[in-house]
Amino acid sequence: MGTVSAIGTAVRGQRGRVAALFDDLARCGRTDPGFTRASYSPEESAAHGVVTRCAAALGLAIGRDAAANTTLTLPGRDRSLPPILIGSHLDTVAHGGNFDGAAGVVAGLAAVAALRELGLTPARDITVMGIRAEESVWFQVSYIGSRAALGTLPDGALDAARIDSGLSLAAHIAREGGDPEVLRSGPPALDAAAIHAFLEVHIEQAPSLEEAGIPVGLCTGIPGNVRYPDVRILGRYDHVGTPRRFRRDAALAGADIALALDRVWAEREAAGFPMAVTFGRFHTDAAAHGLTTVPGEFRFSLDMRAYAAEVLSALEAAFLAAVTDVSERRGVTVALGPRAEAGVGAVSPRIRDGLAAAADALGIATRPLGSPASHDAAAFAKAGVPMAMLFVRNANGSHNPDEAMAIDDLLDAVAILTTWLAVETCDG
Amino acid sequence: MGTVSAIGTAVRGQRGRVAALFDDLARCGRTDPGFTRASYSPEESAAHGVVTRCAAALGLAIGRDAAANTTLTLPGRDRSLPPILIGSHLDTVAHGGNFDGAAGVVAGLAAVAALRELGLTPARDITVMGIRAEESVWFQVSYIGSRAALGTLPDGALDAARIDSGLSLAAHIAREGGDPEVLRSGPPALDAAAIHAFLEVHIEQAPSLEEAGIPVGLCTGIPGNVRYPDVRILGRYDHVGTPRRFRRDAALAGADIALALDRVWAEREAAGFPMAVTFGRFHTDAAAHGLTTVPGEFRFSLDMRAYAAEVLSALEAAFLAAVTDVSERRGVTVALGPRAEAGVGAVSPRIRDGLAAAADALGIATRPLGSPASHDAAAFAKAGVPMAMLFVRNANGSHNPDEAMAIDDLLDAVAILTTWLAVETCDG
Repeated sequence: MGTVSAIGTAVRGQRGRVAALFDDLARCGRTDPGFTRASYSPEESAAHGVVTRCAAALGLAIGRDAAANTTLTLPGRDRSLPPILIGSHLDTVAHGGNFDGAAGVVAGLAAVAALRELGLTPARDITVMGIRAEESVWFQVSYIGSRAALGTLPDGALDAARIDSGLSLAAHIAREGGDPEVLRSGPPALDAAAIHAFLEVHIEQAPSLEEAGIPVGLCTGIPGNVRYPDVRILGRYDHVGTPRRFRRDAALAGADIALALDRVWAEREAAGFPMAVTFGRFHTDAAAHGLTTVPGEFRFSLDMRAYAAEVLSALEAAFLAAVTDVSERRGVTVALGPRAEAGVGAVSPRIRDGLAAAADALGIATRPLGSPASHDAAAFAKAGVPMAMLFVRNANGSHNPDEAMAIDDLLDAVAILTTWLAVETCDG
Repeated sequence: MGTVSAIGTAVRGQRGRVAALFDDLARCGRTDPGFTRASYSPEESAAHGVVTRCAAALGLAIGRDAAANTTLTLPGRDRSLPPILIGSHLDTVAHGGNFDGAAGVVAGLAAVAALRELGLTPARDITVMGIRAEESVWFQVSYIGSRAALGTLPDGALDAARIDSGLSLAAHIAREGGDPEVLRSGPPALDAAAIHAFLEVHIEQAPSLEEAGIPVGLCTGIPGNVRYPDVRILGRYDHVGTPRRFRRDAALAGADIALALDRVWAEREAAGFPMAVTFGRFHTDAAAHGLTTVPGEFRFSLDMRAYAAEVLSALEAAFLAAVTDVSERRGVTVALGPRAEAGVGAVSPRIRDGLAAAADALGIATRPLGSPASHDAAAFAKAGVPMAMLFVRNANGSHNPDEAMAIDDLLDAVAILTTWLAVETCDG
C-alpha cells in the first residue's frame, strides 16, 4: 500500500473530478427547486450515463445488470476473488438534492481514481455500483435496485406501479434498458456469498455531524423498521354536544396512541436505545369531519425503527399495548391493517474498525453515528454481505433542494475509504 | 286553570294528532336512510306546511315572517300583552332523524290543542313557532331563523352560500317565500323586549335520560362556545430518519395540544364544571403527508363549550397555554386563525321552577340537564327573552336516522308544558 500521506494527497487531487461529476449530475433531472430523478426515469438513466462516462475515462470495466444497475470495475489481480462493492443510488425524491445517493457513487469513483493514480492494483476487483431505485417513494418498495441484483426483491414487486406514471416497475425497468424477464426467472446478478464487502458513502440526513463539527460519521448500524402503513381507528361520529362519557372519539384515541409511543421513545432513547417513531399520516376523514362533529374515524401510518431487533420488538409491543389500552379507554376499535418489516442492517465490526483506524491515521475526526434512515447497504447486510457506511456532514437534511455537503468533507470520507481499500486489498 | 289531572288527560288525548303529525313530517325530505330537510329547502317548507295545516284545523291564527318562519297563534284575551312563544326548528342535517327540531313544534301544537280542548283561553297570545334554518351545517351560520326574526343575524349572513347549492341564504329565503330585503332593511319581526317567554321542547342529543330511566329533562342552561375553526401548526417536514432532537413534528404537537385540553376537560368536569371540547377536524395535509415523512404541518378545528362564561374563559386560557407550551417544546409555530364565540344561554330560574312544579304535580319524573348542544332558545335568551327548555329522552343521539323518541315521553313533556301554560297565563 502507499503511505497514508500519499493517499491523502491523491484523494485531494480528485477535487476537480468530483466537482465536475456533481456539475454533470446537476444537469440530470434539474427541476425548480432541486432535482427530480425518479426511479427508472430517463433522468436517473442520465445520471448513470454521467458516472459511466467518468469510469470510461478512468479505464474501468463497465457493466449493466438486468435491473439496469451500473457496475464500474477496477479489476483486481485475481479476478476470481470475491469483489469489494462500493455503491449507492442515483435516483432522488421529487425536488430532492444533488447529493443524497449520488455522493456515494462519486466517492467510489474518486477512491478508485486515487488508487489508480497511486499505481495500486487491488488483489480483488473493486466495483463501484450505481444502484437503481432506492427511493421507495416512487414504487413504495424498498431497495429495488440492490435487491434486484441480489435476487431478494419481494414477490410482486415488479408489478408495483410508479405513483406518478401508473406504469409497472417491470415496464419502467425495460424502458431504461433492463430486462425484467431475467429478473423474474434468471439467476441474480450478484451472489451475496461471493461478495467480500459492501461499502456505502452517504450524506447524513440530519445535522448531527454539523452540530458536532465533525466531517465524517462511522455508521454503527442501519435500523430495522416495523411499519403499519394504514391503521384505522373506528369510534362513533357524534354531535358536538355529546357529553364526555358517551363519546368514542377516534381522533383523541389516535392522539393517545401517538403520544404513548412518543413517551416510550423519549424514555428509551434517554436510556441509551436510539430509535425513531413517525406518524407520517395522521388524520380525520376529510369526507366526514367537521367543526361540530366528534370524529368517528381516524387513520394513521406508523414507522418504527431501531438498531437492535429486541429494541424494535419492545417498541412494537409498546405500540400494541397502547392500542389495547386506548381502545378500551376510549371505546374505539382499531384495525391495524397491513404490517411490514425490514431487518436491522448490522455493520461489520471488522470493516468499521478498519475505517476508524484509517481515519485516525489520516488525522480526520470521525464519530460513531447510527443511521436512522434506510440505505441500500441494509439490503446487502441482510443478504449476509459484510457491510459498512460512512456519513458525510450535511447541515440541511436530505430529500430537499438544500442538501449542503462540502466537497472537502466528501474527500475526507473518500480518503478514509481509499486508505481502507489500500490496507484491505492492495497490500500484496 | 283546569286541574292537573284534567290537563294530563287532555294531553294524553293528543296522542293521535301527534302521531299523525310525525307521519306527515316523515313524508318531508325522506332520504335513505333518514331525512334531509335542508335549511330553506322545499323539503323544509313542506314540513312548515304540515304544521300549518294542523294549526288551521285547530283554528289558530297563521302567520309567516320575512324569514319564512311560521307562527301559529292561539290568541289571548289581551292581545296587546307580550306573547309566550313555543318553538323549535323544522330543518334537519343530511340524513338526520324525524325528531331533532320537529318534536318541539309538534309539542307546542299539542299543548295548544290540549288547552283548547280544556276550554282554557290564555291571558296572552301563545304562539307556536316553526323556525327556519337552525342546523348550522347548511350555511355555517347559527340560529338563522330565530336571529332573523329577532333582528340579530350577523352581518353578511344573508350572503352566506349553502354548502350544497352554492346559492346565497338570501336567494334561498326568497325561494321559500321569505323576503330578504325586509330582513336587510326592515324592522325585525319580533321585539325581544315584548316577548313574555320562549320555551323549546327538544329531544336529548345524548342518552343521559335513557341511562337514568327518566323521560324528561329540565334544561339548566345552553352552553356558550368559543371556536377556532382553522388552527394551523407549522413544524418542518423531515426525513423519517431524522433524530428526535432535530424534529419539529406538527402532528405530535397537535396531539399534545388536544390531549392537554382533554385532560383539563376531564379534571374540570370531575370537579363539577360540565363542558365539552371537540377537535372535529384533526389532520395532516393530504397533499404532503406520507409514511416516511415527519409531518411539517397539521390543522385542526376546535369547539369549546361550557355553561358559565368564566368556565369557558378558563378553558380558552388553558388552550392558549397549551399552544404556547407545545410551540416551545416541539419547536413549531401555531397560527390560531379566526375565532368565533357565542354567549351562554341562561335559563330563566322562574320558568324552570314553574316547569319543575308542574312535573311534580303531574307525577312525571324529571332531572336537571345541561344542554351541551346549541338551540334556537339560546338566541332568544341572548336577546333578553326569559327562556326555558325541556328535553325528551332519546336513546340514540341526534343528527342520525336512528333518533329514538317515544311519543309517550314527548307527551310527558307536553303535559308539563301545558300545565305550566295553564298556571302562567290561564288563571284569569
